[in-house]
Amino acid sequence: MGDQRVIIRMQQNSSTNDLAKLFHTLEKKGFMARYVPYRDDCFVMVEGRVDRDLALQGIPGVEEVISTSNPFPLASLELTNGKHSTVEILPGLNIGGGHKLVMAGPCAVESRDQILECARSVKKAGASILRGGAFKPRTNPYSFQGLGSEGIALLAEARKITGLPVISEVMSMETIEWMMPHVDILQVGARNMQNFPLLKALGKVDKPVMLKRGPMATVDEWLQAAEYILLGGNRRVILCERGIRGVETRTRNTLDLNIVPLVKSLSHLPVVVDPSHGTGIRELVAPMSLAALAAGADGLIVEVHPKPEEALSDGMQSLTTLQFSALMKSIAKLMPALEVFREGEEPCHSVTVM
Amino acid sequence: MGDQRVIIRMQQNSSTNDLAKLFHTLEKKGFMARYVPYRDDCFVMVEGRVDRDLALQGIPGVEEVISTSNPFPLASLELTNGKHSTVEILPGLNIGGGHKLVMAGPCAVESRDQILECARSVKKAGASILRGGAFKPRTNPYSFQGLGSEGIALLAEARKITGLPVISEVMSMETIEWMMPHVDILQVGARNMQNFPLLKALGKVDKPVMLKRGPMATVDEWLQAAEYILLGGNRRVILCERGIRGVETRTRNTLDLNIVPLVKSLSHLPVVVDPSHGTGIRELVAPMSLAALAAGADGLIVEVHPKPEEALSDGMQSLTTLQFSALMKSIAKLMPALEVFREGEEPCHSVTVM
Amino acid sequence: MGDQRVIIRMQQNSSTNDLAKLFHTLEKKGFMARYVPYRDDCFVMVEGRVDRDLALQGIPGVEEVISTSNPFPLASLELTNGKHSTVEILPGLNIGGGHKLVMAGPCAVESRDQILECARSVKKAGASILRGGAFKPRTNPYSFQGLGSEGIALLAEARKITGLPVISEVMSMETIEWMMPHVDILQVGARNMQNFPLLKALGKVDKPVMLKRGPMATVDEWLQAAEYILLGGNRRVILCERGIRGVETRTRNTLDLNIVPLVKSLSHLPVVVDPSHGTGIRELVAPMSLAALAAGADGLIVEVHPKPEEALSDGMQSLTTLQFSALMKSIAKLMPALEVFREGEEPCHSVTVM
Amino acid sequence: MGDQRVIIRMQQNSSTNDLAKLFHTLEKKGFMARYVPYRDDCFVMVEGRVDRDLALQGIPGVEEVISTSNPFPLASLELTNGKHSTVEILPGLNIGGGHKLVMAGPCAVESRDQILECARSVKKAGASILRGGAFKPRTNPYSFQGLGSEGIALLAEARKITGLPVISEVMSMETIEWMMPHVDILQVGARNMQNFPLLKALGKVDKPVMLKRGPMATVDEWLQAAEYILLGGNRRVILCERGIRGVETRTRNTLDLNIVPLVKSLSHLPVVVDPSHGTGIRELVAPMSLAALAAGADGLIVEVHPKPEEALSDGMQSLTTLQFSALMKSIAKLMPALEVFREGEEPCHSVTVM
Repeated sequence: MGDQRVIIRMQQNSSTNDLAKLFHTLEKKGFMARYVPYRDDCFVMVEGRVDRDLALQGIPGVEEVISTSNPFPLASLELTNGKHSTVEILPGLNIGGGHKLVMAGPCAVESRDQILECARSVKKAGASILRGGAFKPRTNPYSFQGLGSEGIALLAEARKITGLPVISEVMSMETIEWMMPHVDILQVGARNMQNFPLLKALGKVDKPVMLKRGPMATVDEWLQAAEYILLGGNRRVILCERGIRGVETRTRNTLDLNIVPLVKSLSHLPVVVDPSHGTGIRELVAPMSLAALAAGADGLIVEVHPKPEEALSDGMQSLTTLQFSALMKSIAKLMPALEVFREGEEPCHSVTVM
Repeated sequence: MGDQRVIIRMQQNSSTNDLAKLFHTLEKKGFMARYVPYRDDCFVMVEGRVDRDLALQGIPGVEEVISTSNPFPLASLELTNGKHSTVEILPGLNIGGGHKLVMAGPCAVESRDQILECARSVKKAGASILRGGAFKPRTNPYSFQGLGSEGIALLAEARKITGLPVISEVMSMETIEWMMPHVDILQVGARNMQNFPLLKALGKVDKPVMLKRGPMATVDEWLQAAEYILLGGNRRVILCERGIRGVETRTRNTLDLNIVPLVKSLSHLPVVVDPSHGTGIRELVAPMSLAALAAGADGLIVEVHPKPEEALSDGMQSLTTLQFSALMKSIAKLMPALEVFREGEEPCHSVTVM
Repeated sequence: MGDQRVIIRMQQNSSTNDLAKLFHTLEKKGFMARYVPYRDDCFVMVEGRVDRDLALQGIPGVEEVISTSNPFPLASLELTNGKHSTVEILPGLNIGGGHKLVMAGPCAVESRDQILECARSVKKAGASILRGGAFKPRTNPYSFQGLGSEGIALLAEARKITGLPVISEVMSMETIEWMMPHVDILQVGARNMQNFPLLKALGKVDKPVMLKRGPMATVDEWLQAAEYILLGGNRRVILCERGIRGVETRTRNTLDLNIVPLVKSLSHLPVVVDPSHGTGIRELVAPMSLAALAAGADGLIVEVHPKPEEALSDGMQSLTTLQFSALMKSIAKLMPALEVFREGEEPCHSVTVM
Repeated sequence: MGDQRVIIRMQQNSSTNDLAKLFHTLEKKGFMARYVPYRDDCFVMVEGRVDRDLALQGIPGVEEVISTSNPFPLASLELTNGKHSTVEILPGLNIGGGHKLVMAGPCAVESRDQILECARSVKKAGASILRGGAFKPRTNPYSFQGLGSEGIALLAEARKITGLPVISEVMSMETIEWMMPHVDILQVGARNMQNFPLLKALGKVDKPVMLKRGPMATVDEWLQAAEYILLGGNRRVILCERGIRGVETRTRNTLDLNIVPLVKSLSHLPVVVDPSHGTGIRELVAPMSLAALAAGADGLIVEVHPKPEEALSDGMQSLTTLQFSALMKSIAKLMPALEVFREGEEPCHSVTVM
């Protein structure tokens, strides 16, 4: 076993009595344990590193003893025996484990007209989820900081009218509670990837969280950040690659597609790619969207603006609605060619989404 | 003027009537303005970019019209006419503008004995401020997360006993208020450099803030982060370089001393250097401390631990109390040799601190 | 015109008399010029920056006056009026301008058996070109440095037996001449991207050159390195992305696919992608190969070894012959799905190559 | 011993007979060996990794058996039992092991007047060596490429007139031989750090070589590049840090001073720092020069130009002769303050050089 962490999955019908006995058994072996309150499953994590076989098989209520050398046991592929997770966004709308989807919309909610026009057109083109920022993390304090609560209200209205679920960024713990009724996925921005109090708070939330990779984070740091959310009990974590600080100065960031197959070999969590921030150049968004899917991404999040030249932020990297529609057609043609050769992967379960 | 921002400094004895007239004058010229509630001085910032001479000289109450092309007007050296600011930590204890000091202590507060022993020895060696983390941002959720409120209480006790002022990291807005009575400088960690809600909250606080540079942040991004705090009205901002992600893998980070003279050519804010995080290797801390001061840093923040080999975090980069004492002696010898040749700089006002 | 460079394309039937007159005309206007001896075309480049219309239209022999603000005029897309170049490797075997192909083989030539077995199997799987290093640039002087001239002889034998053209790395000017008869493409390794004497020597060679991007080079630096070769008169330059130094430590390099569409928007030169060095992990090679083609790459160069576990170098990133064969099948399925949606691009001219 | 390399130092008066016996002994133990023709000393390196005690003590002619886990045994500090090497440039002019010196001069030799004026003024200010490029590696093929052989002739003249030894960059093997009589140190530029054929050629040369660190090279890669030269028999290798590609875009490079004490803990070779390329900004050169010496550098190489605003290359980062003279005065004041506290280091042997 060596430098391992151990997680015990309890049987579905195990009792709290079983749990108490397990803790007692571990204690006698000299180990502290931690109950991890996952929604569907019950896990017990042994504290610290475990250097020997704990001989827990056969103890009442114990279904499986999972051992992993990763510092992110709950995010690891070992937890799921190599099966990639499906994250349910809403009943009938899933991502991961063969379900692929596209999120699209403007960088920032700017006005009622803008968000409604955008929502309608991305829905028509085949997007499954509407993106739009109400709280914008801006490098400069004098830049447009988003519409705030007004922006959330406009997103809620666009959701009601189009039926599209909504993803929006949460920048602080204070705003989580009142965003909850209006947003279907809470997004953690790249700058907040290691905002640990925020991650801990999101671990307690009954809503999927999309965690963007920090611009200089390694995959290990990213998966440990995800572990903060998972450890709180929220199992619905989606990862999002949005580019790192690379060498090239003509592009805004360097989209790191290597990490798509890399994460899939390490973790069961779905991976979405953001080619808009990952390139910063409108003309590069379509080819890099296709490249991301070819690399195995579970979804895309794309910036679309009815009039990119008038956008208050990120206009340079936003597709027009026409360009987005063309991209969705290209994706529809690409997907069957990709499905064929991914042997050993889960088949694609949901085709309506694109 | 061109692509400029304009700030107006009001005279010390200007009246609110003067202020109202100035706003009215700007309005007639087509400009919105923003009152910036600085503690000693009163500033008015003209919104947006200003492409012409506003012809405000001679208007009652206007002392000076400051123009800068930097996106960080309040942090810029233009604001102070090229003079570096002195930040008062406590009456009689200053940093910047010729005042230099050393902060030292353990990475994390671990126990009463540890923090007291450390506080006493760093004071004896000549440190001016005690550092110690109560809330630790840790990459891994299973790592020691700091003693929290208990750690703050222990710091407060060490402060009371030794008389050393205390610097400690604030990780979330929630904890600011109750850290206030016990801490003399609030530190923003590198991972939170662009946690904008936190920066905004710290702009409202009557306490110096030390803002660490993010491991991949440019100087412009860093100074704009400082601008968030300054814009809230808190003028006591100290910058801290702690290393970037470089090429070398044997060191934890790459200490970027270039930015010490660079920041001094752009901003009036004091710059402290953290050679402990900047190298990650105990043996490199002393030479890089001297290098930082030779490059013009206003201070150092150094990790010291009575028993580094038993430290719960960062033991590898912590000096022993003996090593720290030797370093302080080297610094005492170095400083006079440095003071001589920095023509055009403020002379060193405070010599007791080292 | 402003900060522009100017290149004049002469008509196919222009005379040296025309050329002399053009130089005389430019001289009278105060400009020096440089004759660029391109194989098929004759170009005249005006020295320095040109800030006005030279009014050269109508001068005998002048076909076209090309203006570009890029520091790489001969590599720029302006030179070709936005048309991507086809580079002829051998009669009937082309890359670029719609022609796509795969190069494959071992990192280093190790033995007669190894290179022959590998050549036969990659040919059978559909590769168009055999790769194999005889001179290996190794970080450590004690590492295997390649078989040298013996390796070239073995490559020549494999070429004769299988009919596959050969690409191999040239590390110094001395070896160019005697590699010439045995190699069909001369490769410049990433470490030599800015070995300017070598690039100048390769500009005089009648053989295609594949120029790998340095691990920290920007696209502008890379295209200027290509310009050195083009300026010497060798028009057959192929670019190759092989990964940059990124953030992630689990992968050997960070494959920067952003630059595939970026280079195609700036330059007429074909772009090949090396997913083996770009990832360093065998399992990532296939998904990143597909991603590279989806991003618009003109070709791939893939490391294949009959027994990767016994390879003297790069075994971790080499595909088995079986894996390579499976990859080629995936590519064959992917290509038609990609051809459809690339409107405005050259159609795919050559299908036999994969 | 484990994952070790072994080097055997022969006694000064050992015979070739002793050597033959040692090779025979090693062969019987199953090891191949390599004779390393060092100028003063005779070394025998055992090929490959050595996993056990070779029991060579007592064999005739064997003075010492050196074991190191570094991949750069000849560059390692183990080779010299922790003593830093002194490299002799000319009789009476040394660097390393307590000898410190400053090299200064223009980026490129531009004219007779320029190089003579510069040589005279840097000599007067206290520089020990004149720098000046004749062959310039330039990113753009249309940029000034240096005066070539004419530049070398002008350097030779400046050397003759002023008596200052000369350092200049060698870009290709072809030019080594005819630079030899005119140049006292051959410089390998950052782009050529891993130009292995060039490094091998320089291993055969009887002249000191200054090897610049590549802009993205780790210290291990750098020391292995130095090992190529050392392995050829040239022991006079000087390392030069000139900045890496960092985060900051306002500076040309990020001067990585961490590596000064780091290299000194790993290798016996002297380390020079180039604050001109390391910052790219004239105003930063003086503070970073002092910082480099405070960090423990053995020397500086500084760009100085009589009229920086007219320089054909690197004018922005060149000091005026007046500024250089002021810097040398600051250095003279700094050095005694630094000498005091470096316990355990070699005392400063040469004071005349600054």
